[in-house]
Amino acid sequence: MRVGLLNATGYTGAEVIRFASGHPEFVLVGVTARSQAGQTLGAVLPWVRASPRPAYADLVLTPELNGSFDLIVSCLPHEVSAEKLAPFIASGVPAVDVSPDFRLQDLAEHRRWYGEHHAPQHRGAAEYGLTETHRAALRHTKLVANPGCHAITAELALVPALAAGLVAPNVIVDSKTGVSGAGRSAALEFGFSEVNENARPYKVAAHRHGPEIAQELTRAAGRRVEVTFVPTLVPMSRGILTTAYATLRDGVTPAAVAHAYHETYDGEQFVHVVDEPPQTKWTTGTNHCFVSCVVDEANRVLVAMAATDNLGKGAAGGALQNANVMLGLDESAGLGVPPSYP
Amino acid sequence: MRVGLLNATGYTGAEVIRFASGHPEFVLVGVTARSQAGQTLGAVLPWVRASPRPAYADLVLTPELNGSFDLIVSCLPHEVSAEKLAPFIASGVPAVDVSPDFRLQDLAEHRRWYGEHHAPQHRGAAEYGLTETHRAALRHTKLVANPGCHAITAELALVPALAAGLVAPNVIVDSKTGVSGAGRSAALEFGFSEVNENARPYKVAAHRHGPEIAQELTRAAGRRVEVTFVPTLVPMSRGILTTAYATLRDGVTPAAVAHAYHETYDGEQFVHVVDEPPQTKWTTGTNHCFVSCVVDEANRVLVAMAATDNLGKGAAGGALQNANVMLGLDESAGLGVPPSYP
Amino acid sequence: MRVGLLNATGYTGAEVIRFASGHPEFVLVGVTARSQAGQTLGAVLPWVRASPRPAYADLVLTPELNGSFDLIVSCLPHEVSAEKLAPFIASGVPAVDVSPDFRLQDLAEHRRWYGEHHAPQHRGAAEYGLTETHRAALRHTKLVANPGCHAITAELALVPALAAGLVAPNVIVDSKTGVSGAGRSAALEFGFSEVNENARPYKVAAHRHGPEIAQELTRAAGRRVEVTFVPTLVPMSRGILTTAYATLRDGVTPAAVAHAYHETYDGEQFVHVVDEPPQTKWTTGTNHCFVSCVVDEANRVLVAMAATDNLGKGAAGGALQNANVMLGLDESAGLGVPPSYP
Amino acid sequence: MRVGLLNATGYTGAEVIRFASGHPEFVLVGVTARSQAGQTLGAVLPWVRASPRPAYADLVLTPELNGSFDLIVSCLPHEVSAEKLAPFIASGVPAVDVSPDFRLQDLAEHRRWYGEHHAPQHRGAAEYGLTETHRAALRHTKLVANPGCHAITAELALVPALAAGLVAPNVIVDSKTGVSGAGRSAALEFGFSEVNENARPYKVAAHRHGPEIAQELTRAAGRRVEVTFVPTLVPMSRGILTTAYATLRDGVTPAAVAHAYHETYDGEQFVHVVDEPPQTKWTTGTNHCFVSCVVDEANRVLVAMAATDNLGKGAAGGALQNANVMLGLDESAGLGVPPSYP
Repeated sequence: MRVGLLNATGYTGAEVIRFASGHPEFVLVGVTARSQAGQTLGAVLPWVRASPRPAYADLVLTPELNGSFDLIVSCLPHEVSAEKLAPFIASGVPAVDVSPDFRLQDLAEHRRWYGEHHAPQHRGAAEYGLTETHRAALRHTKLVANPGCHAITAELALVPALAAGLVAPNVIVDSKTGVSGAGRSAALEFGFSEVNENARPYKVAAHRHGPEIAQELTRAAGRRVEVTFVPTLVPMSRGILTTAYATLRDGVTPAAVAHAYHETYDGEQFVHVVDEPPQTKWTTGTNHCFVSCVVDEANRVLVAMAATDNLGKGAAGGALQNANVMLGLDESAGLGVPPSYP
Repeated sequence: MRVGLLNATGYTGAEVIRFASGHPEFVLVGVTARSQAGQTLGAVLPWVRASPRPAYADLVLTPELNGSFDLIVSCLPHEVSAEKLAPFIASGVPAVDVSPDFRLQDLAEHRRWYGEHHAPQHRGAAEYGLTETHRAALRHTKLVANPGCHAITAELALVPALAAGLVAPNVIVDSKTGVSGAGRSAALEFGFSEVNENARPYKVAAHRHGPEIAQELTRAAGRRVEVTFVPTLVPMSRGILTTAYATLRDGVTPAAVAHAYHETYDGEQFVHVVDEPPQTKWTTGTNHCFVSCVVDEANRVLVAMAATDNLGKGAAGGALQNANVMLGLDESAGLGVPPSYP
Repeated sequence: MRVGLLNATGYTGAEVIRFASGHPEFVLVGVTARSQAGQTLGAVLPWVRASPRPAYADLVLTPELNGSFDLIVSCLPHEVSAEKLAPFIASGVPAVDVSPDFRLQDLAEHRRWYGEHHAPQHRGAAEYGLTETHRAALRHTKLVANPGCHAITAELALVPALAAGLVAPNVIVDSKTGVSGAGRSAALEFGFSEVNENARPYKVAAHRHGPEIAQELTRAAGRRVEVTFVPTLVPMSRGILTTAYATLRDGVTPAAVAHAYHETYDGEQFVHVVDEPPQTKWTTGTNHCFVSCVVDEANRVLVAMAATDNLGKGAAGGALQNANVMLGLDESAGLGVPPSYP
Repeated sequence: MRVGLLNATGYTGAEVIRFASGHPEFVLVGVTARSQAGQTLGAVLPWVRASPRPAYADLVLTPELNGSFDLIVSCLPHEVSAEKLAPFIASGVPAVDVSPDFRLQDLAEHRRWYGEHHAPQHRGAAEYGLTETHRAALRHTKLVANPGCHAITAELALVPALAAGLVAPNVIVDSKTGVSGAGRSAALEFGFSEVNENARPYKVAAHRHGPEIAQELTRAAGRRVEVTFVPTLVPMSRGILTTAYATLRDGVTPAAVAHAYHETYDGEQFVHVVDEPPQTKWTTGTNHCFVSCVVDEANRVLVAMAATDNLGKGAAGGALQNANVMLGLDESAGLGVPPSYP
């Protein structure tokens, strides 16, 4: 299958290449970049020569995609992504949008957080791409809105509890994240000397993934859920650890919590319910997520934790998982990359 | 003043030496260690030669303190600390205990978390050593129970809101910590390859600093406060960032929150209320703390954040600050070490 | 093919599992450990559930290997490795020894650096396992002595220059290494707080890989080569960067140097000669090596640089590459893991 | 004494503030910045509030220095530095130039590496500011050319051996450096995700500090010394570890080497000759340097190692040490900051 990748040289685009280099069906035939157009992929990302498809290093980056494609993956920033995807969507080419352009169902909310939408005519065609909670719909769409990295991790942590009605609809999501989520670009605040030996919250209760999490938790709960979302940058390249807090409803036992989580995830190949607290390092470079719960009886609080790789399950891995489902392939195709431990 | 330091070669002991090397009144005359007894301080900690008192490198580590002292600082582990301090306390030598032995007022709670107390006769003599909230009492004691590193940071974050009655008495404390708090000892789980590129919660809602935080927040609030305390290890050597969450009482405005925090801390030289989210790097190597609040109106949640150096304000710095107050010295003596940025 | 792995829970053993989980022919049927015997692999290494063979998590660690095997890989420490491998070697089971027990050809040198040899009767059967320089011999052996991680990287950097007689036989090897090479064990000196923000040389001109490098460079040069080998620990989990220095013979041009390196490696799939200085990050988690040379004309010095992952090409990756060659399989089987960038 | 600081908000400028905040004589009265002009120092560097002179946080950054000064420290980039310092030099104000503008004595060399000189009329007035080797001259100058960070470390490692004629005049300098030396600016290549878990050489045998090292080693040796200088970026914020290699002259013994180093440095308060390999962490945040030598008898190579903090002794610390000497103050004034260990 001929795959085109929009914005191949950011961290998410690079991670799509990384997974795609081991995909049994996908062949990368077009890769775009803006400032590096004209260079080969190998000139910008020399490690591609050490991937399972070293020939990808010879692909020339172009400003636009030309030719025919069986799948488009867009790692462009918002606004641009919808704009560049629009012609492909219009002509029926299956597409996965890793940008936030098609995530929020409420157009007013989208405008508030992201500004004007550049392809509003296609909003109705998109399905939200958390495979585990939207798998059925994803089988019948041609446009996937891939979730945000914080959102994926928070939703995997909290959906079982809210869907089963175990907690009150006011939740707190404290998300520790590595730096690669900020993208591959020059910025003082993400310089090594600024990030190393530092922990700092940012966009406190004001981050764009907040409304996205609320939308999906509301969908799971069947009623309005309020979310206080606080991301914190910690000195890692990869990894998101979400610690979510919610007030347990009266009478809910630890056993009931465990039952809900196991029932939701025991059939999933990429989500693992474990007894000990999850570690991001268990997921590095993969499409996997580890989830664990603790009940604080004295305070009647559920502590739900989830660990992912923000570039893996949190972006490129999830994108390929969604593409596999959308295209009727084996859901795990290309995703058999072992974690990088230690 | 002649100072004796129990367990000088752990990270907290080393940090006491670091601050003491610039203290105008203190002279370190006795330093103990267990397995390294007989060696010089410089053999174990070569960097002492690069401190303002390089002669400290020639101090010989002994198993016990001998001679007379004007101040004892204990960085021993719990149980041993109370036991070794007891004779000094009995003979009236001012002491700061950096261990948890004298922190919890409720003996049953102490036994639950730490086991049998080894100097119960002295429990009544101890004052809890968060200088900012216990300064008056510290002026009249001879035994300071220095707080835990998570506890100091959490209390500085939440005391103003609870003391002013702005929030409900059920709080969540999510604390991101560097590794040095685990001490200077051989342990696989704190090895570089395990900690680097990893975030992991530990002792979820089951950490010993939980009851300590609850004790002090209860004291501040004047009523029972329940705390869900979750520490997370992140890949830093130094630093604690606490993000605390509490439900705002009806009618409480952001202005009321800001007022409470400024009123509490504007006269303090080591606690700074700031508008932007605090960063641990601003405090590295110092006795300072930065505090900031955000109000999430939609969810009616107060997000209170505090950043410290777990070895500085969170341990050795706070210990010297308390010693200064107890001994009637300038509260900031020896604490004029600039932060190590970047 | 039935594979048995001795000492499965150290970092090198874990990396063998990591690569083996994607190998088309190998099936891991026996895994040993000492202190964790009786536990499952998944209990010790939870991330195995996120590998392409999650069922490996249910393998029970045993003190010894039982049953029949088509391949044994030993990640035991020296002395023990030779001892435990001896019966398998004796009965003709193909084996790869990742320990140094069969690396040094001179028994006196072996005794000097490693002590008494525990299976001297099998020393003659072993072939040194740097595939690129010993491929022909490896096809006809049943016992591979896998090289040391520093040695692999240094030899890949210098063999072409010495084999072509471009430099004098006195070389300097300055090797920067991540910490995982020290193994997965409790040790203060490899604790995060000791390693982070630190660079420190160790075993200066006195490291066991020194004589191994000298042996192989001597073999390549056809005359005695002296090596000054200095390893430096830098704050990374994975990666070795070797910078080697040698005096150019009169008349040797940069073009002659480039020719020698390209001629040696252009047919190799795991070694890449590049123009810019190599980065360890390009190799993270893989069996690849990047090599680059600079000629300092003024000082007539060749600077030869090589970057690998010490656990990949430097240990477990190289071990599987050797096993593939020894067993007549595709040399790259199981080694198609893309690098983990960033 | 009134001190003006040019370019206060880069890492070197910030480090000057850090040391100056504890200097007994210096009062910072002017601080310049380009893009942040108009802001307070505390707005750009919030940690200044946690320094011994929190009032410095209220200093307003200006584009130029105005008023009278007893000392100017310039942390401007080259070319600009000479240009901005020229009027102060002309009017006799003592100045320390942390830029490379006055380091190279040979104007042709300066032009080759740095381009046209912007204040050639003042070149003759400058003294090279490695205090330990130029102290006498520094007492009688009004313009100090502060050395480069790699150069300082390399010179401290090699000067004793070359001055005593113990080694041949062809040396290799392999320098491992933290990232802060690259300055405080937005650049992809110094982003956390690029630097973390990576080691990479840069400007191999083509770095500007090479000719500077050669100049000073030549001066020490009394004959032309050739230097192959290779810097490598490792994932640290602070610290330089230099490993230097030189061929021992016939008959030179380890004892002769030790004697030369101790004789050179035993009277110095900021340079420490030690037996074990030096670690950068021993120097973090200070003006100190640790030096150690190993003789490789078999290869007749001297391995001379030195560890500093690139921002401390390698830049701002050395600058204040030089200023103290130039102004007749206690050489160690303001430099009594203990290292930040761990």
